[in-house]
Amino acid sequence: LGAGALSTVGLIGLGVMGRNLALNIADRGFRVIGWDADPAACANFAAGAVATDLAELVRDLEPPRALLLMVPAGEPVERVIDALRPHLAAGDLIADGGNSHYRDSRRRADALRQAGLLYLGLGISGGEAGARHGPAIMAGGDRAAYARLEALLEAIAAPAGGEACVAWLGPDGAGHFVKTVHNGIEYAVMQLIAEAVYLLRHLGGLTPPEMAGLFRNWNRGVLESYLVDCAAAVLAARDAGGGPLLDMIRDRAGEKGTGRWAAVEALELGVAAPSLAEAVAARAMTAAPRGNAAEPSSPPLDGLPADLEPALLAAAVCCYGQGFALLAAAGREYGWELPLARIARLLQGGCIIRARLLDGFAAAFDADATPGPLAHPALAAQVGAGLVPWRRLLAAGIAAGLPLPLFASTLAWYDATTRPRLWADMIQGMRDRFGRHGFERIDRPGQHHHDWGEA
Amino acid sequence: LGAGALSTVGLIGLGVMGRNLALNIADRGFRVIGWDADPAACANFAAGAVATDLAELVRDLEPPRALLLMVPAGEPVERVIDALRPHLAAGDLIADGGNSHYRDSRRRADALRQAGLLYLGLGISGGEAGARHGPAIMAGGDRAAYARLEALLEAIAAPAGGEACVAWLGPDGAGHFVKTVHNGIEYAVMQLIAEAVYLLRHLGGLTPPEMAGLFRNWNRGVLESYLVDCAAAVLAARDAGGGPLLDMIRDRAGEKGTGRWAAVEALELGVAAPSLAEAVAARAMTAAPRGNAAEPSSPPLDGLPADLEPALLAAAVCCYGQGFALLAAAGREYGWELPLARIARLLQGGCIIRARLLDGFAAAFDADATPGPLAHPALAAQVGAGLVPWRRLLAAGIAAGLPLPLFASTLAWYDATTRPRLWADMIQGMRDRFGRHGFERIDRPGQHHHDWGEA
Repeated sequence: LGAGALSTVGLIGLGVMGRNLALNIADRGFRVIGWDADPAACANFAAGAVATDLAELVRDLEPPRALLLMVPAGEPVERVIDALRPHLAAGDLIADGGNSHYRDSRRRADALRQAGLLYLGLGISGGEAGARHGPAIMAGGDRAAYARLEALLEAIAAPAGGEACVAWLGPDGAGHFVKTVHNGIEYAVMQLIAEAVYLLRHLGGLTPPEMAGLFRNWNRGVLESYLVDCAAAVLAARDAGGGPLLDMIRDRAGEKGTGRWAAVEALELGVAAPSLAEAVAARAMTAAPRGNAAEPSSPPLDGLPADLEPALLAAAVCCYGQGFALLAAAGREYGWELPLARIARLLQGGCIIRARLLDGFAAAFDADATPGPLAHPALAAQVGAGLVPWRRLLAAGIAAGLPLPLFASTLAWYDATTRPRLWADMIQGMRDRFGRHGFERIDRPGQHHHDWGEA
Repeated sequence: LGAGALSTVGLIGLGVMGRNLALNIADRGFRVIGWDADPAACANFAAGAVATDLAELVRDLEPPRALLLMVPAGEPVERVIDALRPHLAAGDLIADGGNSHYRDSRRRADALRQAGLLYLGLGISGGEAGARHGPAIMAGGDRAAYARLEALLEAIAAPAGGEACVAWLGPDGAGHFVKTVHNGIEYAVMQLIAEAVYLLRHLGGLTPPEMAGLFRNWNRGVLESYLVDCAAAVLAARDAGGGPLLDMIRDRAGEKGTGRWAAVEALELGVAAPSLAEAVAARAMTAAPRGNAAEPSSPPLDGLPADLEPALLAAAVCCYGQGFALLAAAGREYGWELPLARIARLLQGGCIIRARLLDGFAAAFDADATPGPLAHPALAAQVGAGLVPWRRLLAAGIAAGLPLPLFASTLAWYDATTRPRLWADMIQGMRDRFGRHGFERIDRPGQHHHDWGEA
């Protein structure tokens, strides 16, 4: 480490993520001083020294200090920042590595800057194993704060394609926003995989072990990705009794809430990202009251496994495409100028949605700074190659009464992106009819009203 | 009017809605004193006296006073309330008839109560004509405030089935919340109608005048509703040159934002109401960049008009059902005990989503206080009767590459409600695999983890 470079970091929050991140940091030759409100967490801390309280933690660090918060998002982050501030001096740095909402991060960046402090919001993906061995880290906040932590972050992040999976993506909430979109894509791709398994079970007649083999094969081809690998593991897992674990898992999805933020943000920004909302709704469907329709007795659908690989790839590319469209729109809205190509490469290691298909997005964004979600020929070709089997398996599911909300919603989105004319002439006509909201015309500019007579 | 009953109301905000509501109020024998920050709006006011400022308006009313705000939602409502408060006395009443967000209404109800004032939030639907001749009014807030305005509100509201289309639905934001869900359903049904027209044009080969005749017929049957009537008018409308107006309307949808609130709320509350989000996304799709795929050259689909009537009814019933499920969940969340049967009847007059199909919901909720969205046999039968044609036309659209996002998303939701087992076993297995989030088992209670070995 060069003179003046950061050598020691204060780590607040020694839970699963914080503890593992600390071990990762220590392995890379940096010193960690830890603190947690819970004495048990302090007692178990093995990656460095432990301070007795926040004041001592701050005293033990050399100014300008760097404090990394690994505490639960929301109130806890707020409380720790409030407790820290009286002890800090101008130029000290607070980095928030939790799952904070980007709006909170924007507010905090602003408040800390006004107090002469530096702020960094770190979206960290990869779970426990990622924290320990190399996560993906999406950084937003003060550029000077990132510069100070850059060597440490590059040392602990996962590598991918010769680069560390960490980058400064923009001011204030940019990093946490990218993490939010990551989570939205994660929900969508998980739902696609779950629907693929559902189809293979009900229309393909495959058992979980058979499906495990299929997913392992897929994971050696264009579908190679962490989530397909996970799916193979779940399908292969055996329960204590020797049968498939999958058959013993209750069919009711949980969520921690962060996946829905991306869907809400798409709605608020007017971005067409229906697959993100549909994936959240699909989890809610499994928690709602249900009927008792007989399982469909349709005969096995010939060629379903072969159809599913290109269809799943095409649908997944569309979901990532919606996520990137949301990033582009948010960048415009919040003045972030998000580096989409860098983000596509950063997501190729350490995180939950790492996938070979991101190569196509990186290449697309390298070629053109502001493309539409699927504007690049290589992406369009990947989707195009899956369209016929996608339509075939979706039609079969619809005929059999099998709900495939994500395959259905995503295909409608894709088809809408290709059509020169959609249905909004009718929407606009009706809005003018009942509310005099006006419409544009195809033959001349401006807002127009029709004379509807007496309403 | 009996002694002590309200005879005069102060009306703040004399724009299109306020002015027309004032004429309606005056027609019913109540006195209105108006005020608007815009002198031009004051000069044009013909329904009663005009005050020169807020202080005079308050002075001219006899305590306890009733002030009705018809100003734009958000900051303007905030400013008027702040300006009014110094002039008011304990027991005075502020009613907000704008499109306020229910969260603002909750906050205001609380603040005004603490100041000794009464609050009423009025969701008013029906546009200009409704305001003038009889809107639907969804009231929330202090019950005593409603009692004081009840005679006036019942006099000006639309009638339906022998009742006035107005009711107190619960405390604080309950009225504005019901209006929000009304708007969400409105977006969804408009999108279904727009997709029906899109299909009739591209796979049915029908012209707008031919479709106008079809919609007029539908409006005499089970699909009878204000929006189908509107659609018939739009399809029949001729441009100055004599051709169909529809062909001249630019295919790009606008929105004022209130329709998305319901979709966001469903996501936040974990309610499966995907059609509401899909309808918002469908509008955004028409504003996004699009390709130039050739229009499909599929041959006309035999029987499409006949298929569409039961399919459109089935899909619309599902969208209303999702809206009512959202109302039920919000009622539980916010302690509102929303009277669902009363709401179904209230929506049968004056508002944009009035429709004969609401009879089925009123009957269903009368029969059982807490049914699932389609638990009543009559509702289930209406959907059931449309299922085969719905599947047929959706499959045809998918094969032809025509995006039908709302028909697709809504059918997936419906099919999910009927199936005893969905796809969430896979979701839960994967969540435990990558994040140790745990899962429930079908054979014993509690949260469980699988031993996945080294991650």
